[in-house]
Amino acid sequence: MKQDAAAPRYRQLADEIAGLIGSGALRPGDRLPSVRQTRASRGCSAATVFQAYYLLESRGLIRAAERSGYFVAPKPAPLPTRAEPSGEPQAVAVSELVFQLLGTGGHEIHAPFGSAFPSPALFPLEKLRRALSSGSRHMSPAQLTSQLPGGDDELRHQIARRYLRLGLAIDPEEIVLCNGALEGLNLALQLLTRPGDAVLIESPGFYAALQALERLGLRAIELPTDPAEGADLEALATLIERHRPKACWLMTSFQNPLGGLMPSDKKRALVALLERHDIALIEDDVYAELQHEGPAPLPAKAFETRGAVLHCGSFSKSLAPGYRVGWVAAGRYAPALLRAKLSLSLSGSWPAQAALAQYLQGGEYDRHLRALRRALATQQRAMLAAIERHFPPDTRVTRPSGGYFLWVELPEGHDSLALHAAALAEGISLAPGPMFSARGDFRRCLRLNCGQPWTPPLERALARLGELIRSQRP
Amino acid sequence: MKQDAAAPRYRQLADEIAGLIGSGALRPGDRLPSVRQTRASRGCSAATVFQAYYLLESRGLIRAAERSGYFVAPKPAPLPTRAEPSGEPQAVAVSELVFQLLGTGGHEIHAPFGSAFPSPALFPLEKLRRALSSGSRHMSPAQLTSQLPGGDDELRHQIARRYLRLGLAIDPEEIVLCNGALEGLNLALQLLTRPGDAVLIESPGFYAALQALERLGLRAIELPTDPAEGADLEALATLIERHRPKACWLMTSFQNPLGGLMPSDKKRALVALLERHDIALIEDDVYAELQHEGPAPLPAKAFETRGAVLHCGSFSKSLAPGYRVGWVAAGRYAPALLRAKLSLSLSGSWPAQAALAQYLQGGEYDRHLRALRRALATQQRAMLAAIERHFPPDTRVTRPSGGYFLWVELPEGHDSLALHAAALAEGISLAPGPMFSARGDFRRCLRLNCGQPWTPPLERALARLGELIRSQRP
Repeated sequence: MKQDAAAPRYRQLADEIAGLIGSGALRPGDRLPSVRQTRASRGCSAATVFQAYYLLESRGLIRAAERSGYFVAPKPAPLPTRAEPSGEPQAVAVSELVFQLLGTGGHEIHAPFGSAFPSPALFPLEKLRRALSSGSRHMSPAQLTSQLPGGDDELRHQIARRYLRLGLAIDPEEIVLCNGALEGLNLALQLLTRPGDAVLIESPGFYAALQALERLGLRAIELPTDPAEGADLEALATLIERHRPKACWLMTSFQNPLGGLMPSDKKRALVALLERHDIALIEDDVYAELQHEGPAPLPAKAFETRGAVLHCGSFSKSLAPGYRVGWVAAGRYAPALLRAKLSLSLSGSWPAQAALAQYLQGGEYDRHLRALRRALATQQRAMLAAIERHFPPDTRVTRPSGGYFLWVELPEGHDSLALHAAALAEGISLAPGPMFSARGDFRRCLRLNCGQPWTPPLERALARLGELIRSQRP
Repeated sequence: MKQDAAAPRYRQLADEIAGLIGSGALRPGDRLPSVRQTRASRGCSAATVFQAYYLLESRGLIRAAERSGYFVAPKPAPLPTRAEPSGEPQAVAVSELVFQLLGTGGHEIHAPFGSAFPSPALFPLEKLRRALSSGSRHMSPAQLTSQLPGGDDELRHQIARRYLRLGLAIDPEEIVLCNGALEGLNLALQLLTRPGDAVLIESPGFYAALQALERLGLRAIELPTDPAEGADLEALATLIERHRPKACWLMTSFQNPLGGLMPSDKKRALVALLERHDIALIEDDVYAELQHEGPAPLPAKAFETRGAVLHCGSFSKSLAPGYRVGWVAAGRYAPALLRAKLSLSLSGSWPAQAALAQYLQGGEYDRHLRALRRALATQQRAMLAAIERHFPPDTRVTRPSGGYFLWVELPEGHDSLALHAAALAEGISLAPGPMFSARGDFRRCLRLNCGQPWTPPLERALARLGELIRSQRP
């Protein structure tokens, strides 16, 4: 954990202790100095020490034992192994499997570990309803029939303001509102490619990206992707030289399914590399707002110099699923993307856009996000602990610093497709690894959703999943 | 005008008189028998005679002269000539022109004769707003995150009920809600074709269909299309034999831009012909509810026996533009279309769907439609009369029995593209003929929107358009 002199005092302290744990100087079971000792040795307030310890606890590095202080937590499960895909461009043939696996086979799901969304309980539904009603009063009738393919001006302005807070100057005219980020991603991909072209994607990667490639007759070049830090840039450079891909589609922050966060320096290098080869980046950044702590990560778009990063965002994961409002900040491709949107579906649904504009103007979005991030962090810790309790001891699992997915790698010989079928029959969903691969790899991996508030029924469902896994033991 | 023994008495009478006018037995300027005379000779009530005369007046066939009774109206302008396209499949290259022409070049438009929508003043905006608010209260939070690519169940049910009233039994499961009919049409076309395939379309035809063909790399086979009765079936049969097209995309009722209504018998023959050759029909029926009088026309889908008609409907033209809620009743293609929708944009925007479901449940849609149809009929008459006053005498123009478009054919040598540029500079928009052709034909034609309530400023704008046309005189 890198130390940052500009960080608040408690975070500096936490990072220092995390460093000691990481280096082995502090080992699992070791007792931390008491708050009083630390206060004295550091000359800081008790509050600072408490905050630092709380942060370390929230990262799963230390644990409080009642009345006896803080201890270094047991060593967490190792990260999943990094895939080493062939690097050869290949036709994608996974769509049929994905559609099958997205269905529930008629079973009622009580443990939605396979879901793509956080629990609806985490969203400000009542306030959104009021925004729907008041948003509709603010619209001029003429807006309804004048063709506005780019979408509601106020909402585009609000989105541009949020970019500005990250230090990105994005002209609202560059932003094209879409029916969810998914439509924008699809439009961007179609704009940049012709059938037969090769496109760089992560491995494992988001199944809807794979489906988009398949539908457009594109070939996938799968990149080795680190569970913590994202796509491998050395491999990327080699594969660009070898195959001259037409586009690169990456999730640079809290990647689906791994949850990896590409560090800012690496994002900068990524953009420089792609710009050198004049390859556009489709940056799927729909989890951008869901860091568990600290400031939001910068997107790769922050480092572009040529307008060739198409940054795709969404409110579906952070505020209003079902409203289907996403966008593309499309750089120099904005005029072409606007036309593609116009001829595909004219414009987005106006009431949802007006409601979100209204809600964002109200200024409560950041408060909501803080609560949502805390909830997701808490739920992830709970699910990680439950996996530790119930899954086989040689299970590997990610520990993302944002989003709400865990990627689990079961020991050799396990089969997530069989597990999926068995779990579904008991009302437990999950997303098997082969959904995230161009050719059905990751057979012993699965993605679990920790976007639901943790409850005893979910704990029991995860325990049951553990039993099903053990019963599979080859 | 065919007589129908099941029609109400006044309509029978009106049809009979229309027949006499059509055959030349009654000529322009002839005086009609007085209401008293007709009542006596027919043994019907005065109300019946008045209703019949009113209907004939609304059709533009007779005119009332104050205190002196009813006279046969002057012979209307002849219909535009029927295009005779080559019939050879050809690449489409019109998209760039269409995009240019859809723009306003920065001019503020006060006479939107080029608009694709009726005036927002004709829609029940306040009631829709209330439906937005109450619709959102009726939704369950789980609906927001459970993936419902088909769309809101209640709305699909309401749409199925409306089909049933026409005598069509459509399972709600067959209906896929889309972001406007346009998305559905695009998805259907993509589902049925591969790049290079040939597709049958009307000539002139809807520009978004042309753009869809161009984007997907399809070749267009343009069908000769009658301004009154739609696509030519003999030509269709020949072209099917010759070119083996993969799909057929037609607007069978109130076609855009001609306004033609294919009679039911012809629709039945169309479907039989396509079924014989196993060619799917994409039936773009977004003006279906906008007949100016009488019952709604049956769609071609009513005659299918093999589930190969993909019937595309919408609320954008009849109730709620900007909400972007359309659908496809996709027959045997429904499962595949649902998957295409899922991977393109997951699902439609939920608030708009819930609002429309709520509005339709309220039972006021039919009342609204009656008022809308009356308004469109009145406005069309007003615009036709204004064209007669202000355009050159050898102008040809359609007289559709539904929708809100007139197709105008100017005398030889006129140029609608130049006219468009000149008009736009004065705040008057129009849709030039070349937008409606695969290769930019119909240079002396234009489509005018009569969806705006007729006002003195619009009358002046049309007069000005007439001056611009005359000043073009080659």
